[in-house]
Amino acid sequence: MSTTDASLGGAGSMSPFTYATRTQLLRPSIVREILKATESADVISFAGGLPAPELFPAAHIAALCHQILAEDPAGALQYGTTEGHRPLRQAVCDRISASTGLPCDACQVLITTGSQQALDLVARVLLDPGDTVLVEEPSYLGALQAFAASGANIVAVPGDERGMSPESLRRAIAEAAARPKLLYLLPTFHNPTGVTLDAGRRRELAEVAQAAGVPVLEDDPYGPLRYAGIPLPAVVSHVRSSAWIYLGTCSKVLSPGLRVGWLVTPEPELMKRLVAIKQAVDLHTASLNQRVVARFLQDAPAFEAHLQLLAGVYRARRDTMAAAIREHFPSDCAFTVPDGGLFLWVRLPHRFDVDRLFHLALERRVAFVPGSAFGQSARTRQGIRLNFSNADPGRIAGGIRRLGELLCECDGHGVRARPCGR
Amino acid sequence: MSTTDASLGGAGSMSPFTYATRTQLLRPSIVREILKATESADVISFAGGLPAPELFPAAHIAALCHQILAEDPAGALQYGTTEGHRPLRQAVCDRISASTGLPCDACQVLITTGSQQALDLVARVLLDPGDTVLVEEPSYLGALQAFAASGANIVAVPGDERGMSPESLRRAIAEAAARPKLLYLLPTFHNPTGVTLDAGRRRELAEVAQAAGVPVLEDDPYGPLRYAGIPLPAVVSHVRSSAWIYLGTCSKVLSPGLRVGWLVTPEPELMKRLVAIKQAVDLHTASLNQRVVARFLQDAPAFEAHLQLLAGVYRARRDTMAAAIREHFPSDCAFTVPDGGLFLWVRLPHRFDVDRLFHLALERRVAFVPGSAFGQSARTRQGIRLNFSNADPGRIAGGIRRLGELLCECDGHGVRARPCGR
Repeated sequence: MSTTDASLGGAGSMSPFTYATRTQLLRPSIVREILKATESADVISFAGGLPAPELFPAAHIAALCHQILAEDPAGALQYGTTEGHRPLRQAVCDRISASTGLPCDACQVLITTGSQQALDLVARVLLDPGDTVLVEEPSYLGALQAFAASGANIVAVPGDERGMSPESLRRAIAEAAARPKLLYLLPTFHNPTGVTLDAGRRRELAEVAQAAGVPVLEDDPYGPLRYAGIPLPAVVSHVRSSAWIYLGTCSKVLSPGLRVGWLVTPEPELMKRLVAIKQAVDLHTASLNQRVVARFLQDAPAFEAHLQLLAGVYRARRDTMAAAIREHFPSDCAFTVPDGGLFLWVRLPHRFDVDRLFHLALERRVAFVPGSAFGQSARTRQGIRLNFSNADPGRIAGGIRRLGELLCECDGHGVRARPCGR
Repeated sequence: MSTTDASLGGAGSMSPFTYATRTQLLRPSIVREILKATESADVISFAGGLPAPELFPAAHIAALCHQILAEDPAGALQYGTTEGHRPLRQAVCDRISASTGLPCDACQVLITTGSQQALDLVARVLLDPGDTVLVEEPSYLGALQAFAASGANIVAVPGDERGMSPESLRRAIAEAAARPKLLYLLPTFHNPTGVTLDAGRRRELAEVAQAAGVPVLEDDPYGPLRYAGIPLPAVVSHVRSSAWIYLGTCSKVLSPGLRVGWLVTPEPELMKRLVAIKQAVDLHTASLNQRVVARFLQDAPAFEAHLQLLAGVYRARRDTMAAAIREHFPSDCAFTVPDGGLFLWVRLPHRFDVDRLFHLALERRVAFVPGSAFGQSARTRQGIRLNFSNADPGRIAGGIRRLGELLCECDGHGVRARPCGR
């Protein structure tokens, strides 16, 4: 999951600083490196995980900033409590209770600087170097980075097209040298696979973890972006102890640039420690930003209308992408149309070398993230993650056609099989 | 500097989580606990380090938000690069070059979520558990927390009324078991003492550190708030290698609630590692907030005018506080009127038990931070930190009179001497 990266310097470095042991395990996210490579305007990029900027409610946010700064300039610009702005904590609770079936009290909510910070805080509070964390295979890269930064031993639990299997989880727990410290799940519109764990698996995975005394960390950045099917109870709603943590964020439904996320846990001792470490990390999350998000969430009809708008646009983009894949990709490429979120995951037959395809695709000015960025199993390495939220239907159709043409050409000659591809 | 806090739970805790070893070293900041205790309106609090909220340029910030969200909604609300918004990095450079004599390039600037995050990132990249960090005695609590969170061995280097002495630094380096990983200094309008290192000491300390190969971390949150005297070159401007880091923030000159700070280092290898860890920590600092601060700094005449406004008000409050101390405190209390910043530090004679005084003062609805929050030497424990930026002159005069009355009463009876005080 993480390797020593030569570009981060090693024994031969002339740096006047001596670095901590663990930072050498960390390398810049592959995805972000890919994003840099795809910044030129003529590249059609399906690589990022970006929301559609044209749907940001910028005028609404500007009006909220104006209103908040006029009504309570001191509150919006002064230092705040580490736990977060109380009305935002309440609004988060109300939203979570309504949408996930989790009972929730405002004092169980910690506001974080994006949910990436929540992952990092949890890792710092719970993980000693060498501790085992169980993750899905493949899994969200940002979480893997946060766990790696704490020196954790990241163990990928195999799954199938329905996500992590309870049987594999049971086996992974049994085979771990010591009881794993955490089970990390992204059960709804998974990044990168788009898979949603069904109700049965949610219950079963929670029961397996609970029986083994393994706390569950549920990450739910995409839950509100549902385009089909009905909402499911959170995995952690099936955990009957207080051994769970649930993460959410405004990044995908409002704006990632505001950097406002949240963490919920019913365990007071854990909350106390998370607050103590957050205090040392950044004191608190930006005051104005918290107030903007609070007002946005508090106005439930406007928020629902905004979610409807997003869902309508993203559903159409998802459908455009799915149709184009059906039309242009070789017929033995497997993919599932996700019920929500931002990503479509295509599994290519083994005759394709996906990492090499990535470079060939870039030459044709179209980008995706190769499966190898998310996990190292043979199954994951055959995947490509395609984001459908950040390009209009015309670019989606054009980009997928380019990719499809490349795949078909590879089938005729060139990189088609690993033996001749390298 | 940090102790195992029983309130954070130990072996007897019933928590379903198992906590990482190092979080047990961390306790919530005493100052923040004090702040909570002093939140009621009838307490005159000199305990915080808060800027005056009535001087926040709220209307200006609202106008900037409006303008930025209208001109570039996508940039202001979308994900951004981990390094930070380029125009802000440039504006920070321009400002630093002009005010501290440090040559600076925009690629040497990392935007952080307040300078507290910069302290944490530096600690995580440079410090392994047990590594030695040299700090002033007393020192800034937030820095001590960040170093403690990385498990560092924090060594307080004694100083005098002029700040850390080069001779003590030389001795501390010689006595350390291994070469210290970092020398942390807050040389300008120190928190908590208000002391500014003079030009000679700046050069000497830099030379001692450089000769021993100890990198220097200079924290400069208050530098722009100067009420007397002339600006001095940064300590790190005397370090001739690239073994230095310089921190700044908009918290004291614009708004702490925006959570925008910065870190400068000329060492590319260090920058690369800091960016990698920041990516795992919060991806990047809030996009809108970075743009607000950039525009504020770019408009140099308006920024200078705002600094002048702050300086005028804070200078008057400092002078009010100093005059009240002279009038009401026992004549053998020592204090220095600082040339800038937010704090005045009074050293009480040893007959006073300062921790006990703190509680007695709270009963009279007036608050300060006792020296024991910042360090454990006998000298530090006799200090009290008084913030003069966050109360108007009337409350300053009234609060100091109450404190003075308490001190004079103690001199007559009660807690006057340690033996009878406890």
